[in-house]
Amino acid sequence: SRSLNLAVIPGDGIGQEVVAEGLKVLSAVLPQDVKLETKEFDFGARRYHATGETLTDADLDALKAHDAILLGAIGDPSVPSGVLERGFLLKLRFAFDHHVNLRPSKLLPGVATPLAGQPEIDFVVVREGTEGPYTGNGGTIRTGTEHEVATEVSVNTAYGVERVVRDAFARAQARPRKKLTLVHKNNVLTFAGHLWTNIFNKVAAEYPEVTTDYIHVDAATIYLVTDPARFDVIVTDNLFGDIITDLAAAVSGGIGVAASGNINPSGDFPSMFEPVHGSAPDIAGQGKADPTATVLSVALLLRHLGYEDEAARIEEAVSADLGERGGLPARSTSEIGDALAVRVAG
Amino acid sequence: SRSLNLAVIPGDGIGQEVVAEGLKVLSAVLPQDVKLETKEFDFGARRYHATGETLTDADLDALKAHDAILLGAIGDPSVPSGVLERGFLLKLRFAFDHHVNLRPSKLLPGVATPLAGQPEIDFVVVREGTEGPYTGNGGTIRTGTEHEVATEVSVNTAYGVERVVRDAFARAQARPRKKLTLVHKNNVLTFAGHLWTNIFNKVAAEYPEVTTDYIHVDAATIYLVTDPARFDVIVTDNLFGDIITDLAAAVSGGIGVAASGNINPSGDFPSMFEPVHGSAPDIAGQGKADPTATVLSVALLLRHLGYEDEAARIEEAVSADLGERGGLPARSTSEIGDALAVRVAG
Ligand SMILES: CC(C)[C@H](C(=O)O)[C@@H](O)C(=O)O
Ligand SMILES: CC(C)[C@H](C(=O)O)[C@@H](O)C(=O)O
Repeated sequence: SRSLNLAVIPGDGIGQEVVAEGLKVLSAVLPQDVKLETKEFDFGARRYHATGETLTDADLDALKAHDAILLGAIGDPSVPSGVLERGFLLKLRFAFDHHVNLRPSKLLPGVATPLAGQPEIDFVVVREGTEGPYTGNGGTIRTGTEHEVATEVSVNTAYGVERVVRDAFARAQARPRKKLTLVHKNNVLTFAGHLWTNIFNKVAAEYPEVTTDYIHVDAATIYLVTDPARFDVIVTDNLFGDIITDLAAAVSGGIGVAASGNINPSGDFPSMFEPVHGSAPDIAGQGKADPTATVLSVALLLRHLGYEDEAARIEEAVSADLGERGGLPARSTSEIGDALAVRVAG
Repeated sequence: SRSLNLAVIPGDGIGQEVVAEGLKVLSAVLPQDVKLETKEFDFGARRYHATGETLTDADLDALKAHDAILLGAIGDPSVPSGVLERGFLLKLRFAFDHHVNLRPSKLLPGVATPLAGQPEIDFVVVREGTEGPYTGNGGTIRTGTEHEVATEVSVNTAYGVERVVRDAFARAQARPRKKLTLVHKNNVLTFAGHLWTNIFNKVAAEYPEVTTDYIHVDAATIYLVTDPARFDVIVTDNLFGDIITDLAAAVSGGIGVAASGNINPSGDFPSMFEPVHGSAPDIAGQGKADPTATVLSVALLLRHLGYEDEAARIEEAVSADLGERGGLPARSTSEIGDALAVRVAG
């Protein structure tokens, strides 16, 4: 019999609530012969305040012993900005070499969008996850004085760019439209921009069936609101990917339904799946959070582990559930989870 | 009698056409006693191909002898990406220390927006213009090999941040809502982020009437499409400003109506005014380009030089013209310019 050994990090704020629903749906969809084992980890603001720790080497060892990680949300206003982001979220992405940050955007039927005319939206962003301006390189001199200089160094390697570009081409090749767009700012960030552009063009030669184009990140934000249907797969740097995927989530139904995977395709380390939204402390503990983004992250997790049918069942359940929401009274976090669990159980 | 000594850079593509209309409206609005002198400069792709030059020291000297600069657009697909951007546009911003990059966004009555429900949009972005990731610092090693490393260094100084933050507070104080939002990514880019945040908070103490808040750049893109009315004045770094002002232009009527100023408030060097749009080579020479963004840039130019009434007359003319466009047949570039010139002449 098979097993699925899952590390669960509920985290802060609404993280607890949404992860509970994600696990409910996971249990409901898994085949009978798959033994699900979950281990919960208490990371985030509470642990930081109690111990001063965010993510230790021992924590990383413990997490490593799992097939995948499901995370709710990390972050709380009581912790200074940057501490949990750099000390937990980014530390984990870098330690487990999560270089493919996968963020699909699909506007499902019946879902509200701020855009007029309900455009067609169905693309996926492959965001680099371990390089660019996220490395933490940089520093300050004359700190706190009127002569302070603060630098941030974006580090880009041929190795790091090529592996994520290859991943994106493979994903584009597997989709019906077979189109891949490189988003960067190669007219200003010329050093990194040329590296990305050259590698993109080199790999493109190996994928004659994939149509490619290039657009600057500033122009990409325009297209995301005026013509999102032009996108199929996007590959981009860590920071540009951060920015455009929040915008992409906003136009395709909001961060309540945006899922993501922090993937290490080599399998050397477990991949991590999480909703794009944060911990939303203002609504935490009230049963108001929409668990849909977490449930869709569970689908990405299952697909990553080879459970394609189960992933598809979850996506169909979400699609059907969202399609019926319009006009219905608002449901609580667990009511939505229950409804999805019933649907996937079939 | 007064004089206005203007350097004019039509540039590439539609630049020629839109600048002609901008000058038409400028002539029509200027008081009789102001002697307008214009000198045209032939910068851009043609000059680059003919001479290999983008912007020489002699060019900078010649430009410096003017009260202000009006630019159409620079850029052409025949020139490798980055050459004119770094060699002309950014060189000029840095040489003339254009540290206040001013980009107003106002959704005028009757203007189409991709957003549903015609939201209220009336804010201005103060984008830093001479620092951040735009300095050209960085480089490559093992260039072109599989071991290449390319870096981009974002340089931020207390001096550079404080002067633009002060400019933004003064602008917020002068507006009815008196609200200023800092946009950065201080949870990840912690070195630069703390510098920006600390200076922002320090200057805020001198402006007790100005309401302030902070949002991450990724979240800012969400608000720009879901709740743009929340913004009054935004101050941000060079790259974040580049990205969010394109999005801001898109939601508030498109880049056909987005104006900008590259301002040196000290007056040591002339400031430059330009539409946010590029050279649009695909429609160049066809009389299809909308000159409105250039005309609104002329208004910013006039306000900068102290011609407040004339600036306001242009803005009213544009507003009235746009309000009447809906349902009318499309007009050519010069027809729109003619209509605006008639309106401002009164
Ligand atoms: C919280 C922060 C570190 C993170 C990022 O910038 O990557 C978040 O915005 C995201 O997109 O996952
Ligand atoms: C053309 C380019 C150098 C420029 C920039 O990035 O600043 C443009 O996008 C702008 O916003 O003025």
